[in-house]
Amino acid sequence: MDPSELYERHRKTLEEAVGAIRGRHFWSPYPESPSPKVYGEEAAPAGKAAFEAYLGRDFPLEGHPGTGDRVVTERSPYGLPLGVGYPRAGADALIAASQKAAGPLRDAGPDARAGICLEILDRINKRSFEMAHAVQHTSGQAFVMAFQAGGPHAQERGLEAVAYGHDMTTGYGGTVRWEKPQRKGDPLVMEKRFTAVPRGVSLLIGCNTFPTWNAYPALFASLVTGNTVIVKPHPRAVLPLAITVAIARDVLAECGLDPDAVLLAAERGEDRIAADLALRPEVRIVDFTGSSEFGDWLEANARQAAVFTEKAGVNGVVVDSTDSYKGMLGNLAFSLSLYSGQMCTTPQNIFLPAGGIDTDEGHKTADEVGEDLSGALGRLLGDPAKASGVLGAIANEGVLERLSAAEGLGEPVRRSEEVAHPDFADATVRTPAVVKVGADRDDVYGREHFGPISFLVPTSGTEESLRLLRESVGRRGALTASVYSTSEEVLAEAEKAALEAGVNLSENLTGQVFVNQSAAFSDYHGSGANRAATTSLTDPAFVAGRFNFVQSRRHG
Amino acid sequence: MDPSELYERHRKTLEEAVGAIRGRHFWSPYPESPSPKVYGEEAAPAGKAAFEAYLGRDFPLEGHPGTGDRVVTERSPYGLPLGVGYPRAGADALIAASQKAAGPLRDAGPDARAGICLEILDRINKRSFEMAHAVQHTSGQAFVMAFQAGGPHAQERGLEAVAYGHDMTTGYGGTVRWEKPQRKGDPLVMEKRFTAVPRGVSLLIGCNTFPTWNAYPALFASLVTGNTVIVKPHPRAVLPLAITVAIARDVLAECGLDPDAVLLAAERGEDRIAADLALRPEVRIVDFTGSSEFGDWLEANARQAAVFTEKAGVNGVVVDSTDSYKGMLGNLAFSLSLYSGQMCTTPQNIFLPAGGIDTDEGHKTADEVGEDLSGALGRLLGDPAKASGVLGAIANEGVLERLSAAEGLGEPVRRSEEVAHPDFADATVRTPAVVKVGADRDDVYGREHFGPISFLVPTSGTEESLRLLRESVGRRGALTASVYSTSEEVLAEAEKAALEAGVNLSENLTGQVFVNQSAAFSDYHGSGANRAATTSLTDPAFVAGRFNFVQSRRHG
Repeated sequence: MDPSELYERHRKTLEEAVGAIRGRHFWSPYPESPSPKVYGEEAAPAGKAAFEAYLGRDFPLEGHPGTGDRVVTERSPYGLPLGVGYPRAGADALIAASQKAAGPLRDAGPDARAGICLEILDRINKRSFEMAHAVQHTSGQAFVMAFQAGGPHAQERGLEAVAYGHDMTTGYGGTVRWEKPQRKGDPLVMEKRFTAVPRGVSLLIGCNTFPTWNAYPALFASLVTGNTVIVKPHPRAVLPLAITVAIARDVLAECGLDPDAVLLAAERGEDRIAADLALRPEVRIVDFTGSSEFGDWLEANARQAAVFTEKAGVNGVVVDSTDSYKGMLGNLAFSLSLYSGQMCTTPQNIFLPAGGIDTDEGHKTADEVGEDLSGALGRLLGDPAKASGVLGAIANEGVLERLSAAEGLGEPVRRSEEVAHPDFADATVRTPAVVKVGADRDDVYGREHFGPISFLVPTSGTEESLRLLRESVGRRGALTASVYSTSEEVLAEAEKAALEAGVNLSENLTGQVFVNQSAAFSDYHGSGANRAATTSLTDPAFVAGRFNFVQSRRHG
Repeated sequence: MDPSELYERHRKTLEEAVGAIRGRHFWSPYPESPSPKVYGEEAAPAGKAAFEAYLGRDFPLEGHPGTGDRVVTERSPYGLPLGVGYPRAGADALIAASQKAAGPLRDAGPDARAGICLEILDRINKRSFEMAHAVQHTSGQAFVMAFQAGGPHAQERGLEAVAYGHDMTTGYGGTVRWEKPQRKGDPLVMEKRFTAVPRGVSLLIGCNTFPTWNAYPALFASLVTGNTVIVKPHPRAVLPLAITVAIARDVLAECGLDPDAVLLAAERGEDRIAADLALRPEVRIVDFTGSSEFGDWLEANARQAAVFTEKAGVNGVVVDSTDSYKGMLGNLAFSLSLYSGQMCTTPQNIFLPAGGIDTDEGHKTADEVGEDLSGALGRLLGDPAKASGVLGAIANEGVLERLSAAEGLGEPVRRSEEVAHPDFADATVRTPAVVKVGADRDDVYGREHFGPISFLVPTSGTEESLRLLRESVGRRGALTASVYSTSEEVLAEAEKAALEAGVNLSENLTGQVFVNQSAAFSDYHGSGANRAATTSLTDPAFVAGRFNFVQSRRHG
């Protein structure tokens, strides 16, 4: 297969994607609805069957480096033992294979690489049901969310990175004839060629909760700019990235390129292969999603590499007033509940005046707001089947431990409850806990409690709320911030606070847009401007650091 | 003055500049000829008078922070005592003033900042003669070169950075209406705003030899993306940047902005204020041109900042064959002589087959090529007046010391000679030394000898020449590489070697284009892909790392 054919096949998609990242309007080539009308009658059962065929077996990765030893580390948060075996390979073997694949990938050029990336994404898209099961049973996301966030929404984020990468590597030159007029005689003429040269081996360290969504931007940004990629999945969420790697290797091989340009570095938890790889001189790019501790370590130690991290933060909501009290409560309740708050974008701290807020239903004291939020959570999560569809399952023990600890940190506004999942008896499903703590308890709300844990923080007024938002984000970072107010002055102050803290702000969300969610091609995920993340998915800096231009010139 | 007026005034220039960085064709709004026909009859005498008015006095920088103490550190390489006094201010005072100026500069927005930058550049351009004298008597460049490289060519590099910065901060959003169709009912509608937020205080550390050319890209890239800038000039080359800072402050003040958005950090050599400032948490960007030692130190220690360095390298020429022997020798001789080789782009190592090369004048042994190169240098530099116009003056003692040491490192091909400058009796003018060393003497040619020092390195053949080029650049970095060959195969091999080493390559330069020189908007200066520099002037990464997007959104 000729990659230039792939480029032509997907060219219109790429051009529209480039238009979308610049225009930042709504656009998507990957339908988010898991409906048979969209993906066909066969897609759902075929995807389920494909997923089940992996269980209890060695994952097929033909020709992949490995010792023969297998790694089996996954267990579904829904109770299913997955038992999938992945090849285990040492850092030396992975780096040697990755480097061997580098030259042809670089020489293929940006159009061919974009064609390859778009073909990979297209094939992943067609297997979105298979991916949905894989994401559900590794992350614990409910099925529909796993389909959307693990499938089309992740694919969009990958395509977005391809769009930036192709635009940036082709947008400044290629081959050019340069003619400089001379005062006397013929102009000086030079033929110039500009080649985007990759930095080297790219290491991608995935996370447990969004194995594809948080990985695709880095995977595709590195690949389209010519870097070979070693994908190091979280030991509890290997399958979604193994499927991704397998598809990528297929497309590369079909195009006559070395499939080892994309490798899987499966590991046992104790292997610490991420840290080994991250310090290797050949590794020139590291992308990481996960704990602040390891992210900070990577930034401090992987000095030979461009390091892009997304870590932890303390997301805040400032409630000042609203003209849609029910809308606000419903929106907040959903934001706290979605995937049991296991999103780096879930609000943690709700700052509101102790004296209460003005609403379209009259003045509400802080305690009334707490009660009404609790009520909204109760209504949203009253039915176990519906609740399970929103909450999904708790991904790991760490979340459960933080959840039990959280309820002792202040005055309970709403306690976490167990929910019996209608389909999976062994699933661990929990509703969110909301705890009231004083504005002076920055020692509590000022650090991240990842999971379904939020704090209601009564303040002396909105001015203090905004100050606490700015200070907590300034100290610990945040991926999101949110404000509710009927006053344009307060909204302007909130925007100023968000700009100064460097955090993306949502205002008066009372409908079907949630602060947790960002739309590819339009919303930036993270800003890179605060401690929660050194990068944004996806802005120019996320891609520009992955390549250099090298030029040659001669007289024409 | 309203900056939006400045934006409108210079808008066409900006649009053409953005077109040029993308098209990479020849373009310039700043004429490089110091002719009265271009700049007017009065420009030359007025510029000279303006320069002379600075001498022996305190440089006027109204309202600039300072202790009252003055710094006087410059002495012209042409022997003139400059005696200009600059304000001395401590790191605390500079950072406090810079931060105080930050908010309004950020809030002014990209159009206003671009207008301000273009107005600054326009005023600098009109004072190119004044600047030429300032650059000549600090760097030691000959007058015409100081005019061009210190004036219009530096201004072009500044404008290029403005073009990237404005394009990148305005090219992905602004304000946008986002409409997502829903299966039932009205679309989801959001109004979104994307603001390019600067990183913080930007520290610019200038160099002795190209005080403006190497500083303007960083100065204007930081300023147009909203960062305040502290300009720390080299103690021997303050005046060109003081003039620049003064003009920038004038324009800022006239626009109602705080002039302290651009500050001068003049110092005595022993003050080490660059190191102090570079480690301050408020300093979020560091740009540096100078020694590898300090550049490496900045990269290792200024961890809170995005660090862009241009350091030292070993530039190489591979001579395989030529169909224009005289053209090649003349071009090489000029490249070695221009500004006494005190350019980070001057070729240092000339690799050629010991058995000689084929030329349009027959086969020439390596020794014959050495003799003929020496002859070409003799012809170029035979007349003291003409020689002085090419060579300029030796910038500092360090260069002289390396020059005396170099002649003992191998077999002299051509010895350095003193030249009597026709106008300045105390000028230190030297012709280049060319020394023959064996291919095994990587200990000599494998490190940088900044100044008029080059090595002729006979090899076993072009294959070894290319290997030594690749290896020396791989180990020590390079800003330029060059090849002469009549064989397309050899040129292709050279291009491959240059891509792998990550160095920009010039091929068969035999006329009026020289490997030392790069044309703004078209040629990249440095690649960022080897150890000589972490950055390229100017590529997308040089600008993208200076800002983040912060977003707000609400229902429309």
